[in-house]
Amino acid sequence: MRAVAAAEQVAEPHLLQEIVAGRIIIPCNRNHAGLKSIGIGQGLSTKVNANIGTSKDCAHLDDELRKLEVAIKAGADTVMDLSTGGDIDQVRREVLRHAAVPVGTVPIYQAAIEATSRKKAIVDMTADDIFRVIERQAEDGVDFITVHCGLTRQAAARIKSEGRVMDVVSRGGSFTVAWMIHNKRENPLYEYYDRLLEIALAYDMTLSLGDGLRPGCLADATDRAQIQELVILGELAQRALERGVQVMVEGPGHMPINQIEANILLQKRLCHGAPFYVLGPLVTDAAPGYDHITSAIGGAIAAAYGADFLCYVTPSEHLRLPGIEDVHEGVIASKIAAHAADIAKGLPGALQRDLAMAQCRKKMDWQGQIKAAIDPERARCLRDSRTPADEDVCTMCGEYCAIKILNREETWDFGL
Amino acid sequence: MRAVAAAEQVAEPHLLQEIVAGRIIIPCNRNHAGLKSIGIGQGLSTKVNANIGTSKDCAHLDDELRKLEVAIKAGADTVMDLSTGGDIDQVRREVLRHAAVPVGTVPIYQAAIEATSRKKAIVDMTADDIFRVIERQAEDGVDFITVHCGLTRQAAARIKSEGRVMDVVSRGGSFTVAWMIHNKRENPLYEYYDRLLEIALAYDMTLSLGDGLRPGCLADATDRAQIQELVILGELAQRALERGVQVMVEGPGHMPINQIEANILLQKRLCHGAPFYVLGPLVTDAAPGYDHITSAIGGAIAAAYGADFLCYVTPSEHLRLPGIEDVHEGVIASKIAAHAADIAKGLPGALQRDLAMAQCRKKMDWQGQIKAAIDPERARCLRDSRTPADEDVCTMCGEYCAIKILNREETWDFGL
Repeated sequence: MRAVAAAEQVAEPHLLQEIVAGRIIIPCNRNHAGLKSIGIGQGLSTKVNANIGTSKDCAHLDDELRKLEVAIKAGADTVMDLSTGGDIDQVRREVLRHAAVPVGTVPIYQAAIEATSRKKAIVDMTADDIFRVIERQAEDGVDFITVHCGLTRQAAARIKSEGRVMDVVSRGGSFTVAWMIHNKRENPLYEYYDRLLEIALAYDMTLSLGDGLRPGCLADATDRAQIQELVILGELAQRALERGVQVMVEGPGHMPINQIEANILLQKRLCHGAPFYVLGPLVTDAAPGYDHITSAIGGAIAAAYGADFLCYVTPSEHLRLPGIEDVHEGVIASKIAAHAADIAKGLPGALQRDLAMAQCRKKMDWQGQIKAAIDPERARCLRDSRTPADEDVCTMCGEYCAIKILNREETWDFGL
Repeated sequence: MRAVAAAEQVAEPHLLQEIVAGRIIIPCNRNHAGLKSIGIGQGLSTKVNANIGTSKDCAHLDDELRKLEVAIKAGADTVMDLSTGGDIDQVRREVLRHAAVPVGTVPIYQAAIEATSRKKAIVDMTADDIFRVIERQAEDGVDFITVHCGLTRQAAARIKSEGRVMDVVSRGGSFTVAWMIHNKRENPLYEYYDRLLEIALAYDMTLSLGDGLRPGCLADATDRAQIQELVILGELAQRALERGVQVMVEGPGHMPINQIEANILLQKRLCHGAPFYVLGPLVTDAAPGYDHITSAIGGAIAAAYGADFLCYVTPSEHLRLPGIEDVHEGVIASKIAAHAADIAKGLPGALQRDLAMAQCRKKMDWQGQIKAAIDPERARCLRDSRTPADEDVCTMCGEYCAIKILNREETWDFGL
């Protein structure tokens, strides 16, 4: 807690008060050795998560460890291991061993995959299967887990009554809905929520209450299915807080720009200020190949209005498992969004980096500009790729550089 | 005008009324053969401009024609030829000959360069030098010109009294300020504004009133220098409208997210609804190499609040003259911002493309998804780079695809 207070330039008593109130969390499993803690929530800098992990089609441990390294170098504050291929236990344990940042997972993925590997269907998982995986992952040191506890039968029924275009686009959400249809039972993570709280408490593991009904397209945004689930998530967040379990709430998704402010306000109110973790939001459905940009737009707006934690989206979203370059692009785009939002929120110190950049530009100090950049390597690479005749300036304006022209003027007398 | 009304799905009498009121323009020089007209302004779709043009360090006509082709293919609605190197007249004439979209320029660049090529300094240009270049470019068929008419001595004096960090970052602005300091005279484009109006009127050339004092860093945004110039631009826009000259007004620049709404409102009010053409805004100074993203964030927000026309910014901004790939990336990022804003503004038909995409995703129709994409080639390239074992899905989720799992369910009975 002291490290977080120092890093965020907030007073320790204030930080403690916000943690007690559930408005700030510090995800930190007692079994995650070597973890450097970070805080997420009200009044702190906006954090960025990078998803990594194997899939059945691409399952190489080395690739995932390389993605982890690239994500952290680019500035990711946390990573989630969403592996669904290869030796899932091994990948998670190696990621935890190499990551000094908090690591999250979605345990229902592994529970579903283990069910299918036993030649059964996803819907044949038992509640015990799910909880056993949760306990195993907690034991390994996972700092936060996404659990779709609010996706109840009441919420799921609204998918069809609402007339959604895309039904469910969350993997964990789709497993849960299919399970409820086939088993004619309530979502086990809702029904046995107290059991979940006990595991989380035992390991100091944070719950990230997932939005299994997040809209997967603009047309489904802010519909009754989404908001019904959010109401339940608010109730569950309160129960977690009362049990002494740290909790955050996940949010959409695909959303038109003009609905973002209302969504942030609604989440903060319904969840009594619990930290809000958003995926995107993606402000158009129509730009596959560029969803790091569609979500940087939405993420910047969401964070400026109060979202606390941005899950990155990569250029490969909707198209393929992200590669290493995707991870880099995704983290940088989200860091830009987070930083721009921190400036808008007036966070102490947020503007310092921009001021340093502006002063270097004015002095035509190129090394200083590169140093102040969010991605110094990229800035240097572009700068060096076309060398200007005059090293003070760049190849855009050359001798007609506005800065250089006016830096020459000594007297600014307009006779007024 | 009929073509614009049809393309924008607005009634002709309404369009006419908005043009007369100065809230919509159709840049269209009578000498630009083969031009396909577009409308810019209130109630129309947000338009995107791509800047191309040589510099002293990189002056190749073929490169610029290739950039023109790439910009238009990516969806640019207009291009500006900002050439400052090589044979400027030739580049402009070739661009005009090849461009079916409106073409803009900044004539003071050429006037300044011709002054220096006569072994004189930029500040030795005469008013006649400037107007001769404007007339030559109008004669060639340029559809709109940026003219920094509002950068008066009164406005310039506020650069230093305000205590700006970066003074002037507009090239034309810096030429004008240096000229006023050395010649101890008023800005000729302000002093002889009526002469400018007569040229514009003779060729049906639109004026784009430039913001020579646009902030070049977040710290300078919305300062007294910027707003003083905007007040004068509002007065000049009104004079243009009264003389029957089409006019738009240019805006910043670098700006924190939380100042964008006020800036749009202020411009629209002070300029009596004249179309607003924004460069960015860039929501952080600190991301050279990614300014297509910083400006997509700002542009989407600006356009959602009412900006009509977005000037693209490329990944090379602040670092080098943009290359061909930069042009493509810049246009796509701006198109995403414009489209997301059009959805937020509730523009008729804006959401159709997104709905088509969502429906194709639900049907797992990959060809349809690629067709509905803003950049189909990029989407196809990413999709094809990693082939899934099961062609219905992608390598991200494989058989655990949420859509596929729930498309299998026939009865959605939750017993409620």
